[in-house]
Amino acid sequence: MERTFLRWLRTQLGDSASLPLGLLDDAAIIEGIDRDRCVVTSDLLAEGVHFELASGLAQIGRKALAVNLSDLAAMAAEPIAAFVSMILPASAAQEMAQSLYEGMFPLAREHSVAIGGGDTNVWHGPLVISVTAIGQAPQTGALTRQGAQPGDVILVTGPLGGSIDAHHLDFQPRVKEAAYLHSSYRLHAGMDISDGLLLDLDRMAEASGCAACLKLEAIPVSRAARELSCCVADPEAVALQRALSDGEDFELLLAIPGDDAQRIVADPHHGLTCTIIGEFFEGTGLWQFMAGNHRKQIEPRGYEHGRT
Amino acid sequence: MERTFLRWLRTQLGDSASLPLGLLDDAAIIEGIDRDRCVVTSDLLAEGVHFELASGLAQIGRKALAVNLSDLAAMAAEPIAAFVSMILPASAAQEMAQSLYEGMFPLAREHSVAIGGGDTNVWHGPLVISVTAIGQAPQTGALTRQGAQPGDVILVTGPLGGSIDAHHLDFQPRVKEAAYLHSSYRLHAGMDISDGLLLDLDRMAEASGCAACLKLEAIPVSRAARELSCCVADPEAVALQRALSDGEDFELLLAIPGDDAQRIVADPHHGLTCTIIGEFFEGTGLWQFMAGNHRKQIEPRGYEHGRT
Repeated sequence: MERTFLRWLRTQLGDSASLPLGLLDDAAIIEGIDRDRCVVTSDLLAEGVHFELASGLAQIGRKALAVNLSDLAAMAAEPIAAFVSMILPASAAQEMAQSLYEGMFPLAREHSVAIGGGDTNVWHGPLVISVTAIGQAPQTGALTRQGAQPGDVILVTGPLGGSIDAHHLDFQPRVKEAAYLHSSYRLHAGMDISDGLLLDLDRMAEASGCAACLKLEAIPVSRAARELSCCVADPEAVALQRALSDGEDFELLLAIPGDDAQRIVADPHHGLTCTIIGEFFEGTGLWQFMAGNHRKQIEPRGYEHGRT
Repeated sequence: MERTFLRWLRTQLGDSASLPLGLLDDAAIIEGIDRDRCVVTSDLLAEGVHFELASGLAQIGRKALAVNLSDLAAMAAEPIAAFVSMILPASAAQEMAQSLYEGMFPLAREHSVAIGGGDTNVWHGPLVISVTAIGQAPQTGALTRQGAQPGDVILVTGPLGGSIDAHHLDFQPRVKEAAYLHSSYRLHAGMDISDGLLLDLDRMAEASGCAACLKLEAIPVSRAARELSCCVADPEAVALQRALSDGEDFELLLAIPGDDAQRIVADPHHGLTCTIIGEFFEGTGLWQFMAGNHRKQIEPRGYEHGRT
């Protein structure tokens, strides 16, 4: 397949300023990334684990790119190029590969990401697609998980939970929003929520060497999480549990000084519904606020795709 | 698995100057690559297509990194970092992941490649491993497939064919040799031989806009190709066919002005057995020299792994 398919792909992609060699060589040369500002992320998605074919190949292709762009957004990095490796069921490999790429193109255009080569293979197994995205960190330095400080508040950029309904396929990676917030406010730490708020917040707290405490009643629960929980015994509690643990929200989780966070919540320019959901303090682990300003430790539980 | 496994991986990898964030964040920041010199390549290997588990996991891990380093060598680029995504059979995922990485470490150390994160997943399917390698092009520009000129000779850096015997697992990516040759001689075009001499030479000729003509009797046939062909009707012809088409030789294929090529063949410093096997001329396609300086067109046939 490789040769015919590469011809098709070349005509689709056209020329790109950041990839002068196009798909012509053993490797791609990326132009336009300054020294020490190259940011790389890689995510692999597999049929039956991260998606089902019934979701549609274009949606799956879009997701494979979007999860990587979300990782770049988590660093406040500007996406530059993406490289796609896949292995496809032999029965309809070329059609599938085209549909996967066609799902990526609009998102790639939207974020000015050049698609650069990769590797297309065929077998008698399920579809596996691995994307590596390369970006450029801001001149002021990348946003990392490590900078949260005691006293910082915890902020999320949108409602959480119930992603399995549709959001895990059609979410918008917060690339432009992250760049705007990072350049306009003092963000101490940031990441995207991929494995669920609890699990990811616990990672940020651990990386930053402090503890995180959530106001459970402040957590924005998505409509999908509520709808998926409407017919159970305690719908409010189950919907909240979904917001805490479902994962694949791909909203930003940020550690910010309180006054900057208040200004972000009120800022009409980013187009996000930002909510303050807790704060960091000295110590370790994950906690929830209780009545009378007491705290209770909670277990970080989330959803780890195909992980044991 | 991800968390326990990442702890193990962190202790194995230690700190790296080119990856200051280590495995701690959503994405890695790579330091030390100058502007416009970032080179990226990505290759995916799957069980039953590119390897069998019986070959040993350490050998498979080594190969997954080595094929990518060979792509960087093809550009005369210096390897900097590699990112590993994999999906593993759930039955013994952690042990398998560790063995795969342990197979990569010696090769990574040998070429000063920092291993940076990646993505480790589990399923009930076969092993798939995708590596993306990032390197730095030489200051004088990368070696590409596009620069072969009529009059250039075709040179290969070692014997070809029969790689399936063992070479496809234990080959040495020609990273240091490519850097040395590119800085010491006028190399007009280069690539690594992965899909077989005929298929890859045809690609170089097409990318360069000229024709390539082989002296079949000059082609260095590997001992493995001869041994694999010893019990057939016409062993010499079959061994030659293997050298032309087997693939996974991972030797360099170079287009060089004739006088430079002669000096390379005589140069004791690169440690390679270099052989001149033909030349480029005006026109298109792939040819072989016949008696009386005639030429006959030949079909570019090679081995395309799992490709239809």
